[in-house]
Amino acid sequence: MSTTTLTVDIAGMTCGHCVASVTEEIESIAGVESVDVDLNAGGVSTARITSAREITEAQVGEAVAEAGYTLVSNNG
Amino acid sequence: MSTTTLTVDIAGMTCGHCVASVTEEIESIAGVESVDVDLNAGGVSTARITSAREITEAQVGEAVAEAGYTLVSNNG
Repeated sequence: MSTTTLTVDIAGMTCGHCVASVTEEIESIAGVESVDVDLNAGGVSTARITSAREITEAQVGEAVAEAGYTLVSNNG
Repeated sequence: MSTTTLTVDIAGMTCGHCVASVTEEIESIAGVESVDVDLNAGGVSTARITSAREITEAQVGEAVAEAGYTLVSNNG
């Protein structure tokens, strides 16, 4: 089975709790298999999302907002 | 009924999730009625603890450590 990878930048994350919140929300998107967050406390963090089907940046943006953070941009 | 107040300094807290974790652990100490955390992200935060009976700084230190943070000092 092929998988799709989407990488997004997220602002406002400061600690492991933030990572857990964002990861949980993104994982709730249908098709998402894994989320790997590279925390940059106080700056822009990166989340690499692997999914079994295409997901949109808008879907990720909603999940990130639900967790209380802001999607900065899509770089891949 | 009289209450006792203890104020402690805690290092390492960065966001509301940290506040929630620390508050939850301190509230699990027998006798504690309320915990009011003044978050200073990236610096030293202060927790003001009101309890129905005397609690020790050591008890609070254990709770704070359980949440993953460090008690800095007792200033009251």
